[in-house]
Amino acid sequence: MPQKPSIPKGTRDFSPAEVIKRDYIIQMIKKNFELYGFQPIETPSFENSSTLLGKYGEEGDRLIFKILNSGDFISKVDDVTYSSKNSNSLAPKITEKALRYDLTVPFARYVVMNQNEIDFPFKRYQIQPVWRADRPQKGRFREFYQCDADVVGANSLLQEVELIQLYDAVFSDLKLNGTTIKINNRKVLYGIAEVIGAKRLLVDFTVALDKLDKIGEDGVRQEMLNKGISETAIAKAAPLFGLSGSNANQLAVLKDILQESEIGLQGISELEEIIGDVDKLGLTTSSLRLDVTLARGLNYYTGAIFEVAAPEGVQMGSIGGGGRYDDLTGIFGLKDVSGVGISFGLDRIYLVLEELNLFPQEISVSLDALCLNFGENEGRAALKLVAELRKNGLRADLYPSPTKVQKQFKYADRRKVPYVILLGDKELQEGKFVVKNMTTGDQKTYSLSEPETFIQELNS
Amino acid sequence: MPQKPSIPKGTRDFSPAEVIKRDYIIQMIKKNFELYGFQPIETPSFENSSTLLGKYGEEGDRLIFKILNSGDFISKVDDVTYSSKNSNSLAPKITEKALRYDLTVPFARYVVMNQNEIDFPFKRYQIQPVWRADRPQKGRFREFYQCDADVVGANSLLQEVELIQLYDAVFSDLKLNGTTIKINNRKVLYGIAEVIGAKRLLVDFTVALDKLDKIGEDGVRQEMLNKGISETAIAKAAPLFGLSGSNANQLAVLKDILQESEIGLQGISELEEIIGDVDKLGLTTSSLRLDVTLARGLNYYTGAIFEVAAPEGVQMGSIGGGGRYDDLTGIFGLKDVSGVGISFGLDRIYLVLEELNLFPQEISVSLDALCLNFGENEGRAALKLVAELRKNGLRADLYPSPTKVQKQFKYADRRKVPYVILLGDKELQEGKFVVKNMTTGDQKTYSLSEPETFIQELNS
Repeated sequence: MPQKPSIPKGTRDFSPAEVIKRDYIIQMIKKNFELYGFQPIETPSFENSSTLLGKYGEEGDRLIFKILNSGDFISKVDDVTYSSKNSNSLAPKITEKALRYDLTVPFARYVVMNQNEIDFPFKRYQIQPVWRADRPQKGRFREFYQCDADVVGANSLLQEVELIQLYDAVFSDLKLNGTTIKINNRKVLYGIAEVIGAKRLLVDFTVALDKLDKIGEDGVRQEMLNKGISETAIAKAAPLFGLSGSNANQLAVLKDILQESEIGLQGISELEEIIGDVDKLGLTTSSLRLDVTLARGLNYYTGAIFEVAAPEGVQMGSIGGGGRYDDLTGIFGLKDVSGVGISFGLDRIYLVLEELNLFPQEISVSLDALCLNFGENEGRAALKLVAELRKNGLRADLYPSPTKVQKQFKYADRRKVPYVILLGDKELQEGKFVVKNMTTGDQKTYSLSEPETFIQELNS
Repeated sequence: MPQKPSIPKGTRDFSPAEVIKRDYIIQMIKKNFELYGFQPIETPSFENSSTLLGKYGEEGDRLIFKILNSGDFISKVDDVTYSSKNSNSLAPKITEKALRYDLTVPFARYVVMNQNEIDFPFKRYQIQPVWRADRPQKGRFREFYQCDADVVGANSLLQEVELIQLYDAVFSDLKLNGTTIKINNRKVLYGIAEVIGAKRLLVDFTVALDKLDKIGEDGVRQEMLNKGISETAIAKAAPLFGLSGSNANQLAVLKDILQESEIGLQGISELEEIIGDVDKLGLTTSSLRLDVTLARGLNYYTGAIFEVAAPEGVQMGSIGGGGRYDDLTGIFGLKDVSGVGISFGLDRIYLVLEELNLFPQEISVSLDALCLNFGENEGRAALKLVAELRKNGLRADLYPSPTKVQKQFKYADRRKVPYVILLGDKELQEGKFVVKNMTTGDQKTYSLSEPETFIQELNS
C-alpha cells in the first residue's frame, strides 16, 4: 500500500500562482526596504533553545517548536528526570535547539554577537519564515513569513517618522489604498497606569483596554475589575473610553489626564513630534491615527508602538506592527542600544490583496513563448530555436513531449502563454516557423534562420 | 549575568554583504529557471515524519531533524516503550514532524497531492533551505539551500539535454567558466553489474567505483573484494578502471563491455543521444564529460545522472547534481510518472565564486546617497529631500543621529556610498544642498527646491 501523503496541520504548499503572488509582495517590500537604506541579514532557522526561551512570555515558550537532539538522546537524561515522566522537565534534556519564533530576538542576538563588525546605527531588514505551534485558523499558520525592518543604535524620533513613511510607501506601491497606521506610545500607557494608581497592573490594564473595540466599554470595565483594578482607578481612566476625534484633539485630552505623570507627558511629547513630522511630510495613501487602546502584546516595547489596519470593509487582523524597544540587546549583554522596527505580515497582506483583487494581471504570465512538440526531429530543431529565444531574455519552452496538439494548446492556455510557436515537419522543411498570437488568434510566419525578427517584434 | 549568545553548530548568520552575494547567485539561477520555463513552488519546512523517513536510506533517516511534539508529549508514550529507555523506539512516539532533508521528496509528495490541479508535464523549480544533522565541515552545513529544477511527466531525453544547457547557462551567467558537467547513466551501471555477475552488489560496486579518484584502482579493487565481489567479476570490470579519452571513445569501450546486457546497451544509447544533441546545440562555457565512475548516492535515480565539478584548480566537491528517476511518486501512490531534475549547490558555488573573485563589484553598493545629519532641524529638511530621492527610485538615507561628521563619513565609506549629501544650517538657510562625490571628492551645490537636477545627473 502506498502512503497517502499529507502535510502537517497549519502548514501550506504554495503553487506556482501563489509563489508568484507572494513574491510580488516580497519584492515590493524588499525594494522599499532598500530605498530606505536598510540592509539584509539572515539568521539560522533554528537557534539554541536558550536564545529563544523566556523571551516571549510563558505562552510564547509553549508555542516554540523544539528540535529533538540527534543520536541516543535518552542517554543524556538523568534517572530522576526520566522517572518523573514529566514533559516539561524532560523537554529541555532532550532538545537543545528550537525553530525561531520571530525575527526580532534572533536579530538582537545577531547584533550582540557581531557588535564589533557592525557600523551603528544599523538598519537591517530580514525576510524569513518563523514557526509557532499555535492553533491554526484563518490567516494564522504554524509556518509564516515575517518581513522586518529595524534600526538599532539611534534614539532619534525621525526613525519612527521614516518607518511610518515606509509603511505608506509599501502599501501605496501595492495599490492597497486606505490603510490606517495606528500609533500609540508605551510611555503614555505607563502614565495612565501611574495616574490611575494601577501601576503593577499595567499589563492587565492595557490588555483590557485593547479589547474596547471587541467587548465595549462595559466589558472592559468588568475585565478590569476582575483583574483587581479598583473602581476609583477605572473612574479616573474613564475619559479614555470615549477618546476620539483628530489626533490633536486626542492628544489634548490625554495631556490633561496625564498632567501629573512625567513619563506620560514624555510619551505625549514623542507622539506630538512624530505625528507633527509625518503631517508635514505627508503620506500617500495611508493615514496615521492615534489609538490609545493600542497596546501590543510583546513586552519588550518601551516607546512608540504601531499597528496597521487593512482598508475599511476588509475583515482582517493587523497587517503590520512594530515599535520602539530600548533594551532588547540587554538580555544578551549589550546595554543601551535602542531599537525601533516594523514588520509586514505577508500572509495577511496576501489575503487582503486577493480579496480586493489587487494583484496585477501581468504577473500571472510566466512563459512568453511555447513551442509545440511535433516529434523527435521537429523537437530538436525547436530546441535550437527555443535556446535562441532564451539567450535573448525570453522565457521560452519546448513542450516536453510530442503528445496531441490539442493537449499542448490546452497547456498553453492554462499557463496563459501569449505566443505559441508551431514548428512541424512542413515548416522544418521550408526553414520556417509559425507564431500564433494567443490573444488575437493571428498567425505569422518567420524564417528559422532569422528568429531575431520575431524577438524584435515581441520586445517592441 | 546576561547570556553569552551563540548559534547552533553547523548553522550560519549571513551579514548584509553575504546576503547580497547569495542573492546574486539565487537571482541568476532563478532567472534561468524561468527562461527555461520552470515554475516556482514552495513546500513547508517540516513534513510529517512518515513522508520523509525511509526515503534516504538508514543513514539519511539518522540525519533527519525531528521536531518534538507540543504539549504533554510523554503522555502519548506507552509504558513498554517508555521503560525500554531506547532512543530509537521512543523518537517516533514523541515526534510526528521533521525538517525536510531535500527538496525532491517533498516535491514528489506535492505532485501526488496536487495531481488533479497540475498540468503535466510539470516543470517546477524550488529554492529553499534543507536541514541535515550531518557533521559540519568545509562547505557542509546543517542548514543549507538547495536550488532544484525538475520536470515530471515527460520521458523525452530532450529534457536531459535542456538541463545540461541550463547548467551551462547559469554558470556562464555567473562568469564561472570551465565547469565540467559529468554525465553517466544508471542503466550503464546496472549493465556493468549484470555483466560481471555482481547484480545484487550493485550499490557496493558503484560506491566502490565512485572512489576511483580518491583511493585509486588498487583501493577500489580491495573495497570490492571486501564487499564480496568476486575476483572474476572485478577482472571483467577492469577495462572500466582505465576508461578515458573522448566521450565517443569511452562509449565505444563501454559498448564492447556491455554487448550482452540489454539494459546496459539501452543506457549507452541514451547517453549517445543526449551527448549527441548537446554537441549539436553547443555549450557556452561548460563541457560535458562522460564519467562512468559517477554513481551518486541516492537510490531513486534510474537513468541519466549528472554532477558538476568546479573549474580545475578549485578544491571543492560537486557544485551541482541530478538525474532521471522513473518512479519517485510511486511511493506516494502515483505510478508511471518519470522525472528528471538538477540541483545547484548554493553554498559551494558561493565559495567558488569567492575564491575566484567573481562577484561583481557593483553589488556591494547598497545605498546611492547618504544625507549627513547635522541636527534636528537640518534632519527634518534632509528627510524631505531623502523622501524625494526615494520616490525617484534612489536608495537614499538620512544618517540616523546627529553625531560627529567624521563618524558619519566613516559610515558612508564603509557602506561604499557613492554620494554624500551635506545639508547643514548654512545650506538650509540658503535653500541649497551640497553633494560630495565620494569617488572623485568633487562637491557640487544644488537647489533644495529642485532636487530633480541632482536626480537626473545621477541617472545619466
